[in-house]
Amino acid sequence: KINGDRLWETLMEMAKIGPGVAGGNNRQTLTDEDAEGRTLFQKWCEDAGCTMGVDTMGNMFAQRAGTDPDALPVYVGSHLDTQPTGGKYDGILGVLGGLELIRTLNDLGIKTKHPIVATNWTNEEGTRFAPAMLASGVFTGRHTEDWAYDIEDAEGKKFGDELKRIGWRGDEPVGERKMHAFFELHIEQGPILEAEKKDIGVVTHGQGLRWIECTVTGKDSHTGSTPMHMRKNAGRGLALVTELVHEIAMKNQPGAVGAIGHIDVYPNSRNVIPGKVVFTVDMRTHLLDKLEGMVDEFNARAPGLCEGIGVDFKCEIVGQFNPPAFDEKCVGAVRDAAQRLGYSHMDIISGAGHDACWINDVAPTAMIMCPCVDGLSHNEAEEISKEWATAGADVLLHAVVETAGI
Amino acid sequence: KINGDRLWETLMEMAKIGPGVAGGNNRQTLTDEDAEGRTLFQKWCEDAGCTMGVDTMGNMFAQRAGTDPDALPVYVGSHLDTQPTGGKYDGILGVLGGLELIRTLNDLGIKTKHPIVATNWTNEEGTRFAPAMLASGVFTGRHTEDWAYDIEDAEGKKFGDELKRIGWRGDEPVGERKMHAFFELHIEQGPILEAEKKDIGVVTHGQGLRWIECTVTGKDSHTGSTPMHMRKNAGRGLALVTELVHEIAMKNQPGAVGAIGHIDVYPNSRNVIPGKVVFTVDMRTHLLDKLEGMVDEFNARAPGLCEGIGVDFKCEIVGQFNPPAFDEKCVGAVRDAAQRLGYSHMDIISGAGHDACWINDVAPTAMIMCPCVDGLSHNEAEEISKEWATAGADVLLHAVVETAGI
Ligand SMILES: NC(=O)NCCC(=O)O
Ligand SMILES: NC(=O)NCCC(=O)O
Repeated sequence: KINGDRLWETLMEMAKIGPGVAGGNNRQTLTDEDAEGRTLFQKWCEDAGCTMGVDTMGNMFAQRAGTDPDALPVYVGSHLDTQPTGGKYDGILGVLGGLELIRTLNDLGIKTKHPIVATNWTNEEGTRFAPAMLASGVFTGRHTEDWAYDIEDAEGKKFGDELKRIGWRGDEPVGERKMHAFFELHIEQGPILEAEKKDIGVVTHGQGLRWIECTVTGKDSHTGSTPMHMRKNAGRGLALVTELVHEIAMKNQPGAVGAIGHIDVYPNSRNVIPGKVVFTVDMRTHLLDKLEGMVDEFNARAPGLCEGIGVDFKCEIVGQFNPPAFDEKCVGAVRDAAQRLGYSHMDIISGAGHDACWINDVAPTAMIMCPCVDGLSHNEAEEISKEWATAGADVLLHAVVETAGI
Repeated sequence: KINGDRLWETLMEMAKIGPGVAGGNNRQTLTDEDAEGRTLFQKWCEDAGCTMGVDTMGNMFAQRAGTDPDALPVYVGSHLDTQPTGGKYDGILGVLGGLELIRTLNDLGIKTKHPIVATNWTNEEGTRFAPAMLASGVFTGRHTEDWAYDIEDAEGKKFGDELKRIGWRGDEPVGERKMHAFFELHIEQGPILEAEKKDIGVVTHGQGLRWIECTVTGKDSHTGSTPMHMRKNAGRGLALVTELVHEIAMKNQPGAVGAIGHIDVYPNSRNVIPGKVVFTVDMRTHLLDKLEGMVDEFNARAPGLCEGIGVDFKCEIVGQFNPPAFDEKCVGAVRDAAQRLGYSHMDIISGAGHDACWINDVAPTAMIMCPCVDGLSHNEAEEISKEWATAGADVLLHAVVETAGI
């Protein structure tokens, strides 16, 4: 078993870097705070006897040697970057849980056949530089490195320049490492495990995702002096499409979800009828057919709904990935570990995208989830208990040792 | 008849001050550009033989003497301030139409019994310092001057301080002037006159207004990892209330209008279900009973609609006025003038609030409207024709001379 107190202290040490304004963290990717967090992680890893490799996307790989010189390493990890108003655990738990499992193996003097590598993936959050899971996406060939380097933040600073500026553009060509397996421990970021009173979520699948950016165009005009029959109210288009997305998600239960999170209204003035509303629909489910059916129904119905009230509807897909099914053997190792350790557990589907969803393209992969209070995440008030963190890291340890061999 | 070419040139001269970015104007209240516009208007008025009075709210009164020393003046006017992306005519036409009628009387050597005063009301737009029609509201006692002085703009600058800074806080106590009558010429800011092919709108009533600021509170959570049945999506509350407002307005035809123009979504991120949406409902009609019935129905139904989807609804009235009915004699003078001059005309209800709606509290008042292209206003592309402007000012001249006596 891992040392839960040490893991917790390590989490709290990391949380001191880039403190937020409400008890959480603001350690966005490629900021000075990100660099400080990386340096601390490197020091901890080196103190634990690991050698650190850094690739040209800034991904960090802390390797603990194995006994078989020909065996590919078993990778674990997640991300140290946070949302602007983020929590202390989203991503961090998976990285520092990896460190804790190495420290525990050291304490117990256990040598594994395969090396073990604790990883920190650059820019999982994607808030400063969209999209999310950027560097694991380049690692697996979903994106090119050149494309990633050119992405700009809101101030026009480029990803590549900022990576160099903070001193974490490594020498190692991105994506060259081969993995025996990859395990990511992560908080659920949803309410299911807590509601079901389970310590561990055994992640069998991830959801597929479609982000559909919609533009409803009407005509901005005076709320007082435009008669009802002469209006083209783009806000009504938003209203009808909001309910359409909900209806489609409900029709595709169990498992499907849909909502509109981002909405920009133009000109957004109390006495002007909205002439344009731009918003993004987020639809997900873990079955590809179902996901495609949902998008088809959306595309078939949304334009007509808007036409019916005299406004124009246009949309385009601005983000998408298909549902990953994690590796049966790795998933089995997670389930067996939870069972053996006596933790209550259930199979679960990851609602959010994670680095593991990309790595699954190139290596046998699985995820371990632990509950978080009220399902709250991407929020400084994000909270987990020491017991939940300990259980998650215990299961990670056992699944990894099982996979890496003794 | 007035000199349409001269009126148009004067409009174009004024439009040079505080040019916008797309052919319109940005001459917001109490800016340096506002001061420059005021100075130009004062010069024109003094050149036309008027004496200028300025009150402690910065309202400007350019008086042309009458022949009867005991007769109260007939006032005309509107406002010279614009929206941040405003047009060249909204307000300006009414002020410079007043100047043009004085110039025409000078040309023709006509002396009226009652003096005539061309007025520029401070801060009609209310964009920089809310609410709209601020200084005419203080003039008529709807607001106190102290309250108005303390209103802050987005940068925290106070109305009173900015009025002093630009040098247009006058000595004359606000609201002391007594009026024989008040006439305001204004563009319609709506599409009715153009659609009906009428030169002149004889404004019989204004609409009453209620601005209801609503807050729908749900719970912000991850769009991917929150199951449908555990969501509290405040965006759905907005959707249902948007359609409710539309339904209530449609039920109260003819004449009623309703829409939501201003919407703020929190946290407004593609992968976060909206936890809070704040928006303002704008409801209007010219019949007080109907208006109150609309608000009652809204208050009776909106909370239940939101409760039905698990989100909380709260609202408060943040702006209101009851429908003004303009003075029958003044309205008659406008209708007779249009008739006599051979301009096509129709009775119309003002959809927007205007300074005249407030002045109607303290003096016999009427409004004259002229069409604007596509009903477009509060937009740099706002446009009218020289012929429409000329017709409006002609009717103003005749109605005023009729009322002021020769
Ligand atoms: N874990 C996480 O929130 N990833 C961001 C991508 C998503 O919206 O799922
Ligand atoms: N004329 C005008 O747009 N006034 C502002 C107040 C309103 O919304 O009616």
